[in-house]
Amino acid sequence: MSTKLNFKIAVAQMRPQSGNIRKNLADALKFVAEAKAQGAKLIVFGELCLSGYLLGDRWEDESFIRNLVKANDTLKAASVDCAIVFGSIRADFDRIGEDGRIRKYNAALVAQNGKWVHNGVLDGWIPKTNLPNYRMFDDSRHFYPSTKLFEEMRKAGRIDHLWQLLQPFPIAIDDEMIKLGVAICEDLWEDEYSAKPSKAYGLHGVDLLVDISSSPWTADKWHAREGMLVRRVRDAKAPILYANIVGLQNNAKNLVWFDGASEFRGDDGQMRWAAPQNKEGVFVFNPAETKPVMSTWLTGIAENYAMTIEAMRDFYASYGRVIIGLSGGIDSAVSAAMLVEALGPERILAINMPTEFNSKTTQELARQCAANLGIEYRVIPIQSQYDGRLQLLRDAGYSNIASFDKENIQGRLRGQVQADVTAVEARRLGLRCGFANNGNKTEVALNYFTEYGDGAGTASFFGDDWKGQVYELAKHHNGLKGTDLIPQGIIDIVPSAELSKDQNVDEGKGDPIRYPYHDKLLQAFQDKRKSPADILASYRTGTIESYIGCETGLVAKYFPTAAAFVKDLEWAWMQYSYEGKRHKLPPTLIKTRRAFGFDRRDTIAEGYLTDEFLRLKDMALAA
Amino acid sequence: MSTKLNFKIAVAQMRPQSGNIRKNLADALKFVAEAKAQGAKLIVFGELCLSGYLLGDRWEDESFIRNLVKANDTLKAASVDCAIVFGSIRADFDRIGEDGRIRKYNAALVAQNGKWVHNGVLDGWIPKTNLPNYRMFDDSRHFYPSTKLFEEMRKAGRIDHLWQLLQPFPIAIDDEMIKLGVAICEDLWEDEYSAKPSKAYGLHGVDLLVDISSSPWTADKWHAREGMLVRRVRDAKAPILYANIVGLQNNAKNLVWFDGASEFRGDDGQMRWAAPQNKEGVFVFNPAETKPVMSTWLTGIAENYAMTIEAMRDFYASYGRVIIGLSGGIDSAVSAAMLVEALGPERILAINMPTEFNSKTTQELARQCAANLGIEYRVIPIQSQYDGRLQLLRDAGYSNIASFDKENIQGRLRGQVQADVTAVEARRLGLRCGFANNGNKTEVALNYFTEYGDGAGTASFFGDDWKGQVYELAKHHNGLKGTDLIPQGIIDIVPSAELSKDQNVDEGKGDPIRYPYHDKLLQAFQDKRKSPADILASYRTGTIESYIGCETGLVAKYFPTAAAFVKDLEWAWMQYSYEGKRHKLPPTLIKTRRAFGFDRRDTIAEGYLTDEFLRLKDMALAA
Repeated sequence: MSTKLNFKIAVAQMRPQSGNIRKNLADALKFVAEAKAQGAKLIVFGELCLSGYLLGDRWEDESFIRNLVKANDTLKAASVDCAIVFGSIRADFDRIGEDGRIRKYNAALVAQNGKWVHNGVLDGWIPKTNLPNYRMFDDSRHFYPSTKLFEEMRKAGRIDHLWQLLQPFPIAIDDEMIKLGVAICEDLWEDEYSAKPSKAYGLHGVDLLVDISSSPWTADKWHAREGMLVRRVRDAKAPILYANIVGLQNNAKNLVWFDGASEFRGDDGQMRWAAPQNKEGVFVFNPAETKPVMSTWLTGIAENYAMTIEAMRDFYASYGRVIIGLSGGIDSAVSAAMLVEALGPERILAINMPTEFNSKTTQELARQCAANLGIEYRVIPIQSQYDGRLQLLRDAGYSNIASFDKENIQGRLRGQVQADVTAVEARRLGLRCGFANNGNKTEVALNYFTEYGDGAGTASFFGDDWKGQVYELAKHHNGLKGTDLIPQGIIDIVPSAELSKDQNVDEGKGDPIRYPYHDKLLQAFQDKRKSPADILASYRTGTIESYIGCETGLVAKYFPTAAAFVKDLEWAWMQYSYEGKRHKLPPTLIKTRRAFGFDRRDTIAEGYLTDEFLRLKDMALAA
Repeated sequence: MSTKLNFKIAVAQMRPQSGNIRKNLADALKFVAEAKAQGAKLIVFGELCLSGYLLGDRWEDESFIRNLVKANDTLKAASVDCAIVFGSIRADFDRIGEDGRIRKYNAALVAQNGKWVHNGVLDGWIPKTNLPNYRMFDDSRHFYPSTKLFEEMRKAGRIDHLWQLLQPFPIAIDDEMIKLGVAICEDLWEDEYSAKPSKAYGLHGVDLLVDISSSPWTADKWHAREGMLVRRVRDAKAPILYANIVGLQNNAKNLVWFDGASEFRGDDGQMRWAAPQNKEGVFVFNPAETKPVMSTWLTGIAENYAMTIEAMRDFYASYGRVIIGLSGGIDSAVSAAMLVEALGPERILAINMPTEFNSKTTQELARQCAANLGIEYRVIPIQSQYDGRLQLLRDAGYSNIASFDKENIQGRLRGQVQADVTAVEARRLGLRCGFANNGNKTEVALNYFTEYGDGAGTASFFGDDWKGQVYELAKHHNGLKGTDLIPQGIIDIVPSAELSKDQNVDEGKGDPIRYPYHDKLLQAFQDKRKSPADILASYRTGTIESYIGCETGLVAKYFPTAAAFVKDLEWAWMQYSYEGKRHKLPPTLIKTRRAFGFDRRDTIAEGYLTDEFLRLKDMALAA
């Protein structure tokens, strides 16, 4: 550890409210005052902390940008007797970006004693270098990167190398000059980019590399981040302070959780200090007084559970109550239990909407579950409405209505009754209300849901969980509570939509999905980007179960012949590829490396079976 | 005109089916055969013609890319006795793009006599240079641009300037060597990019610049394209052949129409030949035999009308029937009339779903409209279902149901009955069926629709038309037909949702929207990116009506006081900014420079009123 880093540093782990500059600025000023009161000499905020990170095309609104730039000046002015590093937009109103709009840099701003700190090239700011343009990230749509600014300066003969643009900022603390390298989030995830900001700072020599981030949480990402930060400490030859934000933001089709967990690593790469996960606040430490500590981040299903609760609480913060259709099945039970954990029992209203096809078994399980959770529970039978809808069709001349169509009518009716109840509850409370979408990723991937029915809802917190993970969440919840709040009967019963006699749970009948197999097959498609040809090849060599990671023997059990296997594989791929329904789903919390929504982007078009697949299929069926 | 261009050129104006490589390749081979039969020596396809252009993240599917690259070879092999320029992916499987996936170039491929044509640097291909990353375009998410390839080659010391990479392709025709410059779509929309491919070809000197495109239609875009092509002819110092595709593609939230209209311009910039608009096929011409012609592209409402019909026909090509809720109002009447124009009367089924609030007036207008259009028309009264839903709520303990909530129940019920009828019609026909969403852009912008109700549907063809444009389409349709197929009464009646007594059309009561003003206000927000502060400033100087382009006197008529004006402005901005409902709408045809959906991207967050707006508001209210 450099002995120069012997002073207090504050991480202002903010919860920016997307688009609300006034509120965010007020929070930031409050955090600066708190940090100074605790003796901090350097105060570090996250990326785009005055605006929020996921704003869609609000970045194209010039009046918004002008307001934001004004806020930058106000925060700068607060840097009396301290240095502040914060993320915001640096706009160049005289030039355009390549989108034809005002040129905007996603920048780190550096101020001290009420003035911008000049680094020899730029006055108090530095642009983000690596602009992510995959998954839900749209940085390069809006922002001008340091690499393009460099290219302009190179052509003007001002500098020859990118590293000459990425200069450290000198800040004076207790009569010492501290050289501060400043990077922004993706900058340090530089392995697959040609520009390497941390190496530039390694060339210059810095006392500390500050990494201001709006880094979304996904499962087990902390592990990848740890490896990345260790590599960057080596490249920069300096300690790194990673400063993140907390809170929920969204791109209208996905909810994105930011988990804070800012941390400091010494020049040996070891973590020496960390701010809490998921908690907004000012957190102060003195690097010189730290020693190596182990990370305590959550993992596995506990991580999934905790982050889901946080995201629920944030999303519904301004809502009165959340209505949930409690069927007696696993999905709605887990959703209800976790919503209660997030919001408290009085803010949840469970309704059960039986028809002739709903068994006494599941109705009793739903009632029991609601009682265990201490939530209001109402039975709203929809049989008469269902009969009426069928009669309407008969009156219109449709005498024979297929079972499948009847099932969807029930599904839609449940969606609508939930919407009705949500509206009147909202009116009663004088507060916005919502209703839960309880769909899981397996159903979403296979289009196994009813549009405007169980596909409706205000938000989806389980649409990025495979069915098996929903069971894990149930067990985790009961384990945490030390009692079966989610009745064991709900965990044990066959998964069923109960929309027809063929889905009679008391006769052990249920959904047409082989969850233990399809979960893994779909995960191979989605997360591992495996194709039907890849899967079929592994089937032919008898290695499919280890290839996709499902239990040995399952494939032979479900599919007695190659023809049956291929038929199911084609069906699953065609459903997986077809976006005609999914695009209307409510915004879904991202948990994995690839969620449906605007994370995995799609087009409504038939799925395609490659020539290679058809070749393998011919061989498989001929065998 | 260069005398060297004295041979037949074919534009293969394909209609690529997104993702269906096999079909597209078969079509391309058929087109090559046709072109050769007509004596063409050079055959030019559009951009990404073997895959389609809007594929979402299917570009990340390696098996798909490998199939595509194989198809490239097949098309190359067909270039016997001719040269072929076509758009496809050129993949470098040994390298990655900056997304960490296989490196893919959105490329033009050039083959002759069964072999790739080498241009001295690259063997038969050239990458796209300018990758659009705005609106619905996502090129830079997936593809590696020539500028980055150049940067690699520069670092390797192979070349010093981008123009050295953008080399012409030499093709031999009738013992002459033709130097072919090749650009891809956005490459030539280079005005706001630092890289200028046409100037590179100007430096080299080429006989012809071929511009292969997947260029989406939007209203009046041909006009901008004309200006752009004239500038590029000047920069390249050569004639330009612009080759586009036709057909409908989508990004799951927007439908995008490609209008063909390939054209050839001489070295004076004048158009000398054009392929038809909206028509798939092989179109052959000899440049030496052309002379200047005027463009005959449609404009104004006629253009909007024609393209909407084309898009409807393409979208519903595989559908049996389209169900439409015909209310007797303008939106559904225009939708029905145009669907009939696109699909024929037998493929449309109109249903009218009255409750106690629907007037005899509108019911009679709906019946008359259906009769005029020659479509099946059924009345499916929903009063009993509506009563039943209210009773369900009363039984659940909600004794007083607000009028607004009752209105939404009716809306949702209509959406659901349409979904029911769609399903049973599909079953009856054994074909996919859909139901029309008839919402206009004004309603969408103000969230004036019911989720799962009139916000439901299979596709929206009017969600990018302001209310005033819907009336224009009605008049245009009647004008074309020479008779009021859409009854004049529908055009004259006050716009009303007829969901309560307060919307009684017979008493002249209707929607709470001041369409002639709000249309223009919202257009200022959306298309011109004006802020509430801009609007308020123009109000204060008395110039608002010319500023937003509405009729003089309207503002004073609607808003007697500054307070009333400001209140409405804030309401409109807050609704416009709030994405909580819109993101679930069906995919919407893009017609303008900025449509809702995945064109204008958004986040679900409260609208923001800038400090500048609040300052002006204080002044306005104090005055």
